[in-house]
Amino acid sequence: MQNFEYYTPTRLIFGKGVIGKLPEVLGAYGHKVLLTYGGGSIKKIGLYDKVLALLAGFEITELPGIQPNPKYDPSVLEGVRLCKEKGIEVILSVGGGSVLDCSKAIAAGACYDGDPWDLISYKVKAQKALPIVDILTLAATGSEYDCGGVISRPETNDKIGYIDPLLFPVASFLDPTYTFTVNAWQTAAGIADAMNHILEQYFCEDATLMNDGFCEAGLKSLMVNGKACLENPSDYKARAEMMFVCTLACNNIMSLGNSGSGWPMHGIEHALSGYYDITHGVGLAIITPRWMKHILSARTLPRFVKYGVNVFGIDPSLPGMEIALQAITATYDFFASLGIPMHLQDVGIGPDRIPEMAHHVAVNEGLENAYVPLTEQDIAAILTASL
Amino acid sequence: MQNFEYYTPTRLIFGKGVIGKLPEVLGAYGHKVLLTYGGGSIKKIGLYDKVLALLAGFEITELPGIQPNPKYDPSVLEGVRLCKEKGIEVILSVGGGSVLDCSKAIAAGACYDGDPWDLISYKVKAQKALPIVDILTLAATGSEYDCGGVISRPETNDKIGYIDPLLFPVASFLDPTYTFTVNAWQTAAGIADAMNHILEQYFCEDATLMNDGFCEAGLKSLMVNGKACLENPSDYKARAEMMFVCTLACNNIMSLGNSGSGWPMHGIEHALSGYYDITHGVGLAIITPRWMKHILSARTLPRFVKYGVNVFGIDPSLPGMEIALQAITATYDFFASLGIPMHLQDVGIGPDRIPEMAHHVAVNEGLENAYVPLTEQDIAAILTASL
Repeated sequence: MQNFEYYTPTRLIFGKGVIGKLPEVLGAYGHKVLLTYGGGSIKKIGLYDKVLALLAGFEITELPGIQPNPKYDPSVLEGVRLCKEKGIEVILSVGGGSVLDCSKAIAAGACYDGDPWDLISYKVKAQKALPIVDILTLAATGSEYDCGGVISRPETNDKIGYIDPLLFPVASFLDPTYTFTVNAWQTAAGIADAMNHILEQYFCEDATLMNDGFCEAGLKSLMVNGKACLENPSDYKARAEMMFVCTLACNNIMSLGNSGSGWPMHGIEHALSGYYDITHGVGLAIITPRWMKHILSARTLPRFVKYGVNVFGIDPSLPGMEIALQAITATYDFFASLGIPMHLQDVGIGPDRIPEMAHHVAVNEGLENAYVPLTEQDIAAILTASL
Repeated sequence: MQNFEYYTPTRLIFGKGVIGKLPEVLGAYGHKVLLTYGGGSIKKIGLYDKVLALLAGFEITELPGIQPNPKYDPSVLEGVRLCKEKGIEVILSVGGGSVLDCSKAIAAGACYDGDPWDLISYKVKAQKALPIVDILTLAATGSEYDCGGVISRPETNDKIGYIDPLLFPVASFLDPTYTFTVNAWQTAAGIADAMNHILEQYFCEDATLMNDGFCEAGLKSLMVNGKACLENPSDYKARAEMMFVCTLACNNIMSLGNSGSGWPMHGIEHALSGYYDITHGVGLAIITPRWMKHILSARTLPRFVKYGVNVFGIDPSLPGMEIALQAITATYDFFASLGIPMHLQDVGIGPDRIPEMAHHVAVNEGLENAYVPLTEQDIAAILTASL
């Protein structure tokens, strides 16, 4: 086992109706609140009105319109400006992972005198951040239980995962009923996103028995419950378990003590959604089986065999290579069965910019240190196979 | 899924040599330190000298001699007195779960003006506790990652699990090499203790797929790695994974979202070690298969089948009742294979006080609300079957 440090000080408040505790939890951090949200779905489901009613005694400043793959300009910059101008004490993020990721960058930027990009690009280490409370409306990214946020800057095609322990939310409200109205596309993308988070932890050199069992349980739960969510969007049990597994999936707790994978599929996908602004989980689903096929070798075979047998129940008496190939096909088929288009061309991405994206990933994502090291050529090959 | 709140703000600092960070971590909380430890094994392995050398600039007050099944009098009372007299700012617990449990009671008592038993017996809710840092030398109880401590008061046969979120250690140093010298008896008891923590979470009415997979992974890891620790006490990988699984096993994270079991085996065992001061993990190992046999019924059968198939690899095509009985036998045999004496009479407990113990458990442990409710008669039957 490798040495590690682990620390997640976020309070999870999970279940039907838990939002009643919001004033008490939020009020412990202040009464001047920046309320961040996205395109307005929280208004459609009545959550916006409920939050404002609960926070009648608070001073609320709103930052609406945060987009998927949240943008540095205008959202982060505008949020930082509002925090400074209004003396914001606590940020309340209501929405999915994009709203929360953006809120994290704002929380750090609000406590920094210079250009917030200094922090996001790791030029300067943040010394402080505003506390963040979130109400989650989408099960996917796990941002509610990690200390990272992904921020895009389309003018430079940058999509940076900004990670700092200061950015753990102080409390996350997880009410599965808020995800009942999430449409099939977003539900499927969320399943693929969280499954990929687990696969990025599963495929490594030195997983422990605990790591593997934990990851396999998460994958199987996401497959069963994800499917059930698509079949019946108001299935509380399925939405709840999917939400909880998504929350655990990006927190590193599933891979403590191993040397990690370097998150290669995320490295590659960040270029796709950085260049083309596609749905992150969809990009990951497309990349996943192609990455798997690319790295399959005598060295990695035992991992694929374990994956195939324990996650998909493939007959362990088959030859290893056959199990591995069946497992990769099963992964592809599962994502396809969710209704995810499984080719880049289906989401408007052709071959033209593959060399440019491969170069961008090779320069920025450090995948030469991944579980299976990837060169610019490898990355281009995986992207080309995904077309 | 049931509603839940989850919060574990403890920083885990895991691996070989991590103790070098002790001055920095401890110093953040203060320099007046109460150093708590047990019978002196930390001196034998050189850890005591190492800690004192690292903490050269600190003002150290010592509380040695904390016993297994730690006692209210003298240890808790003496610790509280020292904290008040010396103006202690932070407690450093060096040892196993008993030292840490005792330190937790001291941490709360030190910030309370009245009799610390008021807190432990839940007559008064603590408002504050001193911060605790621990260096673990025994993989077993999981106290390093939970907010409870078990305190014994032999004059009344009380053994109370004192739980309060104020009692999470702020940091736990987990260096598996410190457990190399743990003898076979304590290693076996630690394996049984942690396995029982997981079984107390596994046997419930409404486990999720995530709960079950998580628990099964923990059980299998403890069985494989526990055996390896006994075969080669200096097997770093095995000691490390055992230590990490023990840390997770008592934290509730494995059972979030289900309605729980009520921890019936612990309820019964607390009487055994409360009346007879036996090793807690040994008491649990003896109780476990007898409790299982007692609660086996048509209602609980599916749980036993899942347990037998997924943990012990029993053929799923066998009749359910046969799988269940094989699983219970396998549980017994596994504990016996660790060298644990599997009868109460082997550890000096005869039938004489069974009625008294059963009455004590029935009155104090709330087992009428357990997964399978237990009356005084049930408890006596389980104890009698364990003789």
